[in-house]
Amino acid sequence: MSIYLCGELDAAERQAWLQALRAAMPGERIEASLERLDPAEVDIALVANPPPGSLQGLPALRLVQSLWAGVDRLLADPTLPAGVPLARMVDPAMSAAMAETALWAVLALQRGFFAYARQQAAGRWQALPQRRSDEMQVAVLGLGEMGCAVAARLAAQGYRVRGWRQGGSRSAERAAPVPASEGPDALVPLLAGSDIVVNLLPLTPRTMGLFDARTLAAMKPGAALVNLARGAHVVEADLLAALASGQLLQAVLDVFQTEPLPPGHPFWAHPQVTVLPHAAAQTDPRSAAAVAAANVRALRAGQALAHRVDRERGY
Amino acid sequence: MSIYLCGELDAAERQAWLQALRAAMPGERIEASLERLDPAEVDIALVANPPPGSLQGLPALRLVQSLWAGVDRLLADPTLPAGVPLARMVDPAMSAAMAETALWAVLALQRGFFAYARQQAAGRWQALPQRRSDEMQVAVLGLGEMGCAVAARLAAQGYRVRGWRQGGSRSAERAAPVPASEGPDALVPLLAGSDIVVNLLPLTPRTMGLFDARTLAAMKPGAALVNLARGAHVVEADLLAALASGQLLQAVLDVFQTEPLPPGHPFWAHPQVTVLPHAAAQTDPRSAAAVAAANVRALRAGQALAHRVDRERGY
Repeated sequence: MSIYLCGELDAAERQAWLQALRAAMPGERIEASLERLDPAEVDIALVANPPPGSLQGLPALRLVQSLWAGVDRLLADPTLPAGVPLARMVDPAMSAAMAETALWAVLALQRGFFAYARQQAAGRWQALPQRRSDEMQVAVLGLGEMGCAVAARLAAQGYRVRGWRQGGSRSAERAAPVPASEGPDALVPLLAGSDIVVNLLPLTPRTMGLFDARTLAAMKPGAALVNLARGAHVVEADLLAALASGQLLQAVLDVFQTEPLPPGHPFWAHPQVTVLPHAAAQTDPRSAAAVAAANVRALRAGQALAHRVDRERGY
Repeated sequence: MSIYLCGELDAAERQAWLQALRAAMPGERIEASLERLDPAEVDIALVANPPPGSLQGLPALRLVQSLWAGVDRLLADPTLPAGVPLARMVDPAMSAAMAETALWAVLALQRGFFAYARQQAAGRWQALPQRRSDEMQVAVLGLGEMGCAVAARLAAQGYRVRGWRQGGSRSAERAAPVPASEGPDALVPLLAGSDIVVNLLPLTPRTMGLFDARTLAAMKPGAALVNLARGAHVVEADLLAALASGQLLQAVLDVFQTEPLPPGHPFWAHPQVTVLPHAAAQTDPRSAAAVAAANVRALRAGQALAHRVDRERGY
């Protein structure tokens, strides 16, 4: 049997992945092209946003292991084989990278470093009031691997962190590292008391467009939104209106409705928007290959797979 | 006896300090003007960069307690009474603020957030290689209260941190929270192996101009300098040359030869220079007043003063 690496990777990325995956699974045949494989022999697909239809015509397929953490694009492919288990990438190195990005954004918001950058551009010298970390209330939405890593890291720096999860979410089974609330009714009071809101929810039909005019209006006046999850969580026109009215002071955005962010999009030149190119937590082949290899070994040994996607819930 | 609050404070700051100091020392008479005091009765001066000559004509003076951490400007005043003990401000809240600024700068350098800001200004979408914290070698120069707080905070985030102190420095008596070396001969090898150099040295005749062309050339090519100490540590023309040649990729500067940084100074518009308005760690009257009060009580009780300045060493 053999393994098919498939997805939106440029030549250098494909080489890095093949090298890392082959090193992590020396006994396996792994190729990035079906021309080098017998499709009837492919029982595992390792995927990184594969183009729709990529996984058709693989009759022996028994596992689709995503190399990316988010699987919303994968699940949107109607040709995805229905009966085959899917697994997400859950890599502690990736969670650590996400926690670093969140911490950088929260430090910058607490201490005024985005404002100082605007002042530098204007040639203005003005120290701003200095807030302590224990004066900042931070909400972390989503308490999966990423959300918990972020919440724990922020709490360790002295921030007052509260978590939130959807009602009936997958993460409800695990203990959160910070005080947490659950369900739609708990969201508005949490937002109203938070200086910074960090979004790490999965993108599902229930969370799509969560940050619309109504939700943004429920936030504390002058608060900041840090979106590290998916662009479709945010109604971009509503966010622009909330920034224009002063309801929100700053948005730090790693993800967008359309990626790459199109030329001329108002976010690019907006003084209160920080644009990151979907780089808050990139999968690192060096560590992620070992995570994928563990699931490959589990499948081969007939053991339980880790990080299986619940297709009903969408993550 | 009474206490004279004296220094470069605007009206709002003066009020905040008076309020915090009076709350911390309810039994003391504290005024911000000599017109409200009998100069012969002033035995303690609480100072924040007092104009030269401010402490003349106070025959009963027995303690000059700085409200700022750095005392280089105070010591440069030739009229400073010679026999009176000086004390620096050593406030854990201020050290925490400094550690936050250093962590923000190091995170931004590690993860490319300064580069992403340049890309945003250019409308460019491009993820950059993602480095792990344990791949970053960070040097912290100066291992006093501030340097130790910074080194410990960075080490706790997984960075590979090494400290450096001058030979015969005051901090040699205390244990450093990270591996440390000492003296001029140890500096060049440390710089050559460091991706990021954070300067927290005191400004003394020995450290003035430390970052000149020779020192900058000894740094690792492509490294970054974070100066959170004093502007006079850096020869600004040499730093600009090191950035122009590509020897250094980025400088994060909180302090400058002339402050406020003059209009038209090349740092303002330099794409590889981050200008902060001497705000890396502002003294917070709420916590610093208690530190000053402890020394006032010590003086009144005839006990040893904390954080005395060694005038020979200059800090």
